[in-house]
Amino acid sequence: MKKRARAREAGIRLGGLPPGPGNAITDVIGVQVGHTTLIQGSDVRTGVTAICPHPGNVYAERLIAAVHTINGFGKPMGFEQVRELGLLETPVLLTNTLSVGLAADALVRWVLERNPEARSVNPVVGECNDGYLNDIRGLDVSPEHVFQALENASAGPVVEGNAGAGTGMSCFGFKGGVGTASRRISEGDGGYTVGLLVVANFGQREELRVAGVPVGQRLKRWPAEEGEAGSVMVVLATDAPLTARQVGRIARRAGLGLARVGSLAGHSSGDFVIAFSTAQRLPRSETGCTRCLTCVNEDQSTIALLFQATVEATEEAVLNALFAAQTMRGYAGHIRDALPIEAVVQWVGQAQAASG
Amino acid sequence: MKKRARAREAGIRLGGLPPGPGNAITDVIGVQVGHTTLIQGSDVRTGVTAICPHPGNVYAERLIAAVHTINGFGKPMGFEQVRELGLLETPVLLTNTLSVGLAADALVRWVLERNPEARSVNPVVGECNDGYLNDIRGLDVSPEHVFQALENASAGPVVEGNAGAGTGMSCFGFKGGVGTASRRISEGDGGYTVGLLVVANFGQREELRVAGVPVGQRLKRWPAEEGEAGSVMVVLATDAPLTARQVGRIARRAGLGLARVGSLAGHSSGDFVIAFSTAQRLPRSETGCTRCLTCVNEDQSTIALLFQATVEATEEAVLNALFAAQTMRGYAGHIRDALPIEAVVQWVGQAQAASG
Amino acid sequence: MKKRARAREAGIRLGGLPPGPGNAITDVIGVQVGHTTLIQGSDVRTGVTAICPHPGNVYAERLIAAVHTINGFGKPMGFEQVRELGLLETPVLLTNTLSVGLAADALVRWVLERNPEARSVNPVVGECNDGYLNDIRGLDVSPEHVFQALENASAGPVVEGNAGAGTGMSCFGFKGGVGTASRRISEGDGGYTVGLLVVANFGQREELRVAGVPVGQRLKRWPAEEGEAGSVMVVLATDAPLTARQVGRIARRAGLGLARVGSLAGHSSGDFVIAFSTAQRLPRSETGCTRCLTCVNEDQSTIALLFQATVEATEEAVLNALFAAQTMRGYAGHIRDALPIEAVVQWVGQAQAASG
Amino acid sequence: MKKRARAREAGIRLGGLPPGPGNAITDVIGVQVGHTTLIQGSDVRTGVTAICPHPGNVYAERLIAAVHTINGFGKPMGFEQVRELGLLETPVLLTNTLSVGLAADALVRWVLERNPEARSVNPVVGECNDGYLNDIRGLDVSPEHVFQALENASAGPVVEGNAGAGTGMSCFGFKGGVGTASRRISEGDGGYTVGLLVVANFGQREELRVAGVPVGQRLKRWPAEEGEAGSVMVVLATDAPLTARQVGRIARRAGLGLARVGSLAGHSSGDFVIAFSTAQRLPRSETGCTRCLTCVNEDQSTIALLFQATVEATEEAVLNALFAAQTMRGYAGHIRDALPIEAVVQWVGQAQAASG
Repeated sequence: MKKRARAREAGIRLGGLPPGPGNAITDVIGVQVGHTTLIQGSDVRTGVTAICPHPGNVYAERLIAAVHTINGFGKPMGFEQVRELGLLETPVLLTNTLSVGLAADALVRWVLERNPEARSVNPVVGECNDGYLNDIRGLDVSPEHVFQALENASAGPVVEGNAGAGTGMSCFGFKGGVGTASRRISEGDGGYTVGLLVVANFGQREELRVAGVPVGQRLKRWPAEEGEAGSVMVVLATDAPLTARQVGRIARRAGLGLARVGSLAGHSSGDFVIAFSTAQRLPRSETGCTRCLTCVNEDQSTIALLFQATVEATEEAVLNALFAAQTMRGYAGHIRDALPIEAVVQWVGQAQAASG
Repeated sequence: MKKRARAREAGIRLGGLPPGPGNAITDVIGVQVGHTTLIQGSDVRTGVTAICPHPGNVYAERLIAAVHTINGFGKPMGFEQVRELGLLETPVLLTNTLSVGLAADALVRWVLERNPEARSVNPVVGECNDGYLNDIRGLDVSPEHVFQALENASAGPVVEGNAGAGTGMSCFGFKGGVGTASRRISEGDGGYTVGLLVVANFGQREELRVAGVPVGQRLKRWPAEEGEAGSVMVVLATDAPLTARQVGRIARRAGLGLARVGSLAGHSSGDFVIAFSTAQRLPRSETGCTRCLTCVNEDQSTIALLFQATVEATEEAVLNALFAAQTMRGYAGHIRDALPIEAVVQWVGQAQAASG
Repeated sequence: MKKRARAREAGIRLGGLPPGPGNAITDVIGVQVGHTTLIQGSDVRTGVTAICPHPGNVYAERLIAAVHTINGFGKPMGFEQVRELGLLETPVLLTNTLSVGLAADALVRWVLERNPEARSVNPVVGECNDGYLNDIRGLDVSPEHVFQALENASAGPVVEGNAGAGTGMSCFGFKGGVGTASRRISEGDGGYTVGLLVVANFGQREELRVAGVPVGQRLKRWPAEEGEAGSVMVVLATDAPLTARQVGRIARRAGLGLARVGSLAGHSSGDFVIAFSTAQRLPRSETGCTRCLTCVNEDQSTIALLFQATVEATEEAVLNALFAAQTMRGYAGHIRDALPIEAVVQWVGQAQAASG
Repeated sequence: MKKRARAREAGIRLGGLPPGPGNAITDVIGVQVGHTTLIQGSDVRTGVTAICPHPGNVYAERLIAAVHTINGFGKPMGFEQVRELGLLETPVLLTNTLSVGLAADALVRWVLERNPEARSVNPVVGECNDGYLNDIRGLDVSPEHVFQALENASAGPVVEGNAGAGTGMSCFGFKGGVGTASRRISEGDGGYTVGLLVVANFGQREELRVAGVPVGQRLKRWPAEEGEAGSVMVVLATDAPLTARQVGRIARRAGLGLARVGSLAGHSSGDFVIAFSTAQRLPRSETGCTRCLTCVNEDQSTIALLFQATVEATEEAVLNALFAAQTMRGYAGHIRDALPIEAVVQWVGQAQAASG
């Protein structure tokens, strides 16, 4: 299938901060993304996405991290330890709701193999429910699919739309999936990058806003099939040096970006954020009673810009998911149409032209 | 001064749920609002707003309640006990940042006077910083001002804009203040009302969105004076019967409404929500080991509609604050212009016309 | 091996409230416990414990629940959804640290099989690290072991000590494992029962206190092998009718019971509480916008007694684990001695006699 | 009145870590404590205690801090901002429940006077309810009393018992009040000090444990007057360099120390911890996008020792409050007896002798 334009390429003007060179989570140097996409027969539409926060051994050299729960109707794994210690010690996996346990188990095995001394591992796994297009009860994700996503992880462009964990997802009643975006703040404020990756599987059609334009109001007249409730996973990376408390503050802004696209953080939408800073690696082997950390000076403007970067990149990542995702037929004959990009771009363009 | 049109009256189309009869927090039966507005000399621009959650003795008959911190850079009072017990036992006061202690002290005295047996009181007080227009270091709020706001409390229309705690506030670089709005959900889903009152004192001008239209981008060319960092207090009332956990879930949606208007939950913006349900009063005098509570069945659609009502009412309450507030000159000669409503309404109208 | 006396049978006087008839979590009517104990060759010393909160289909008829993290250095699963919704929808599984993903996956499969319409499941799984006695990297727990623990679940006496998830655990430098206890509050205060089950795998020997007597100070001269850091899982059941907020309040008292035995909630000790009320089942099938719930009237004394019951039952459950556990040799030739009960009982008896 | 022996001087053996030179919060260099004690007529028994975290201008040079709520039935002030920013910017005040607003207001005025540029202040104030011995409805604390406590603050020995905020407090049915203690960890682990100050106003007599000995069981036969429900405030200082997350972890251990003395964290007991690290001051004036912080390396043993120090110092500080407090007659003729030290010491001595 032909690659569809990303939101920005299609002319949607979004936010005030510039994106990084790839407008992707991989603009944060060292971050790698890998997908396993499972499209089999008429009913299997699922997958796994792995986000490797740095190219080394994350278990041996951990990153400062935080998690945030926007709406907790979901089944992520690994959150308690990240909250307590402020550390990420594995890649982050995303998959479907019913495969979290399996993915966590596979991730544990993968870490054990690479760390002969490891006897305790905190796998971090997120999920959305792709049960509208995927025969989710079929439990088709296998450990090999997890390993493959981890091995596939690479820097550079991220495949968006119907890929990896996003394969079978729905968003605002259209085909959803993986989206990514990034923002850079000015050199004078540190020159840091915030990169986002979402699995977008949320939203009621009539609520969809693109660059503020309530296109969902027009699109609700588009033929739609109702589906199951959604959710959204946000993975946020930044090279800004931060304490875990500061990563948490930034993570909490992702919900504002979702709101701009039309999220109501619906009752049954498990909406979660997993965030980390690549600026400093914390090796297990370090001796000495104390460590020195560098962190953003919150008395200056950098933190506010990191907030803005997060809000903007979240909004754009969701739109990129919608723009990239293509019409899919799946489980039980269910169909999710792709967002009708041309119409949307036209409406947004008209509104933007009219309002100056 | 001439009363300015509210956002909806001015033709701004907002959200999918209908407002209550007054489009105000007082649409929730029993809720009363009172202001003390302090405009003295050239420098005093502050006040107190009291929200009485029911017309009886709130200390004797408490309401189920929750609080939520969107961004904790602020000085509210009373949050710990509301979190633990899920109960509101006083009216809610809003005032300026440096007067919280005084207001809390006055509220304690007010409750003691009305409850001869009371020996422990949890005053709930919120604040925003009006220091751009108000000589905040002057500490001009007195206990009498607090008592007056409490005594002024009444049902019916709420004075918006430069009133009460909103007197000296700024919002998106324009004059801010008090705003209110409400939403009703259909009879089939319970027929409940969500009412909101905000003290709006947040936002960067270029981020302002009205009904999704990024009017801030045009308004940033408007002459502006920079000011101090802001904050926003949201008080939410509903007649839906809820547990404290459920009130909390609803309270957490207010942030999404703020995002729609352009909030980034800025670093130094203390953004808080205080929410309560008027459906059931919990008298202290009740004996018996157990109580019966009615609460919304979260397996049905009501809770999702309460979320939507909250998001929409929050957005509209902020806009009502901006639409009602009038240009003010205050402390140190600082001036905050009123939002240029005509231009804004025109731009929004054009955008809405263009996008269908 | 000969069954060892439980703490109370051995004459240890503990607390002011009476235990239930079995002094076990199963004193809460309907609660069932099942173990799979894996002792294979010289190195496999692990297992699974299942706590079924009621004898019906928990997915179809959920219970009000809460979780609490005392120290989050651990890998439990299912906590976010319990926090958001206040509901438990599966049995609770306990196992070793590296088998959480596998156990969650097996539990999902078990629930799917029994609920043909289920397309989203929140498995709740806790863990401790049995790596001192168990070849934890061997990953010996299989889905069948999980199913077996679920099928083994029964009311009545609970096997304590080296059983199920407790098989390979250590506690205060001695052999730890599963322990249970209960407390009943008086009929006038509701006549409710609090039942506790712990997997005890925490503590430094010199800190051990039995009924307040610092026996650890004498026992530190006992030959000891140092081991890996521990953790403790507490599962709490009660038949008191409670809201999720109230269950959470009770759950938070378990840490005080651990402290009485000598817990410091050590850095690497993942200490968690999973608690539920059996008083009311919430069927998915219920229609209607609202539900009626019964809950404890917190203005009366019942809640305080439930707190006391929790503290006391936690203390006694840990002691029961220590008293029941028997000396074990396991992984890499490591040995954990059983607590020398006779000496401990003698010292405690002397201290209690001396202090009256 | 004659000064009574502190617990340790009276021969009570407590914990494994050594205290600092003064066994007081002031062992943390720079920490200063000041009391205003109000004993007037037959009914006024209250006061204010100020803890100045360093001898400089705390508003200008802030300290990394955290708060923790053990049981939230209380009215502290300032918690939200400490949670968000991890900073303490004022001295900590403790007073009676109904005077928190007044004390916060006075503290704001005091900070404004010393910081001409300050336009936003987060006063941190804690409270316990002294209403059994104090005519709490009389609201006898005045701003001058607050200023006096702040001016009285000094390093060195801390007056314990019936002093400052502790003047009218009750504890385990005896006279309670202010207590303090400290612990030092070994040079090899950093040589850090943890200092604690409590206002002890909690506990049911029969639950009292001294060094684990359940003396409350014997003391319940002592003539007692029932009183109102209590609470406890814990202020923790350390010179260990810590992030706010780490300060929070340490703060959460104070509850375990309270449990050792017999706390059930009773329903109506507002139990709170305010903690800070003196190791690094964060000046407002600092420019630059980033800061360097030193913090404890949690992969080493220091953090565990800081936990132990906290548990032990909390236990001892409460006992010191009980040992120092003297019999008081107050409001409505109520009398609180001092703990009968001689009997308690004898019982504890006998138990300790008997158990080795």
